[in-house]
Amino acid sequence: MSHIERRGLMLVLSSPSGAGKTTLARHLLEQDGGIDMSVSVTTRPPRPGEVDGRDYFFVGKPEFHRMEADGELLESATVFGHSYGTPAAPVEHALAAGRDILFDIDWQGTQQLMERRSDDLVKVFVLPPSAEVLGRRLQTRASDSAEVIAGRMAKASGEISHYPEYEYVIVNEDLDTSHKAIADILHAERLKRVRQTGLAGFVREMQAELD
Amino acid sequence: MSHIERRGLMLVLSSPSGAGKTTLARHLLEQDGGIDMSVSVTTRPPRPGEVDGRDYFFVGKPEFHRMEADGELLESATVFGHSYGTPAAPVEHALAAGRDILFDIDWQGTQQLMERRSDDLVKVFVLPPSAEVLGRRLQTRASDSAEVIAGRMAKASGEISHYPEYEYVIVNEDLDTSHKAIADILHAERLKRVRQTGLAGFVREMQAELD
Repeated sequence: MSHIERRGLMLVLSSPSGAGKTTLARHLLEQDGGIDMSVSVTTRPPRPGEVDGRDYFFVGKPEFHRMEADGELLESATVFGHSYGTPAAPVEHALAAGRDILFDIDWQGTQQLMERRSDDLVKVFVLPPSAEVLGRRLQTRASDSAEVIAGRMAKASGEISHYPEYEYVIVNEDLDTSHKAIADILHAERLKRVRQTGLAGFVREMQAELD
Repeated sequence: MSHIERRGLMLVLSSPSGAGKTTLARHLLEQDGGIDMSVSVTTRPPRPGEVDGRDYFFVGKPEFHRMEADGELLESATVFGHSYGTPAAPVEHALAAGRDILFDIDWQGTQQLMERRSDDLVKVFVLPPSAEVLGRRLQTRASDSAEVIAGRMAKASGEISHYPEYEYVIVNEDLDTSHKAIADILHAERLKRVRQTGLAGFVREMQAELD
């Protein structure tokens, strides 16, 4: 039985909100035992039910800034006054152990990851099947004004403009098809020679027996 | 229903003989309606049952040399006095029409394809699970001398040394697992942004509706 050691990879899923990315991410985590969700560090206080170290690593602002200053974060962003970031150490651990990490981040976070870990990244952009479908999903809350909805549509359009920064593009028309697309991308990427770190030794042994 | 036009790709399977590549290739062609086997041109006379244009394009030596001189072949090789090559025109047609082409060629042919069509190539190397299994497969003909068998093993070892020139590596331990590996690589590669030539137009239309 040949077991080739491999280095894990970082699977990034990005999309405009309303494209179905969160559903796809959750399904992948359920189906594939070899990939875990990246756990972010945040200065936001825990919400009821959130567990430190599972949902987030909850830290104070000084600690967050220290981590940032010491280069311990692979990417970070501030949203509505709260800071979020990806700690490098757990990611490094997972990759070295041959486990994959899933990132549900936007194009800005992806660009930051690219600066630090481009070889380990597998970047997937999820597009909605049409403006109409996306619009319908963004209009779910009936109380929102037409102005708010128009703002969301324009924001989605801006996010979509970043799809050329991704290697793979999935048009999420049908969930089953999209689930399979992501699973197959992950499987194929695991078969890349550069990720199969045990190959050189495996081949050397085989050649020693053949020669 | 969103149908994104795409450019086809060239899937190359290489391996030492005895690794099971031909079985894998045949299965893929049966299972996947979007990929065809590349048809080579050859100066070898047809064998009984071989059909011109299906198994090979049969040509005389002068015509083969003319094609070679005019740059009409993507790769070529001479084996036991007969020349073989891949005509460029049918490949170009297929790729432009969004169909994929399967190549069952060695590392030398792959290197030649790389010089001409690197962007379209998806290179997969198939390894046997062990020297023992490979040896068993190479010893099938009981009439061969120990010397002939040793020569085949050494040749296999030389072929295996070229695996670092390939993007993907499959250790063919179990046929079902390997079938799925190749199918998933093909599926993932079809989802690459650069191959989905219709994406730019698709996104432009969507954005026009969102803005």
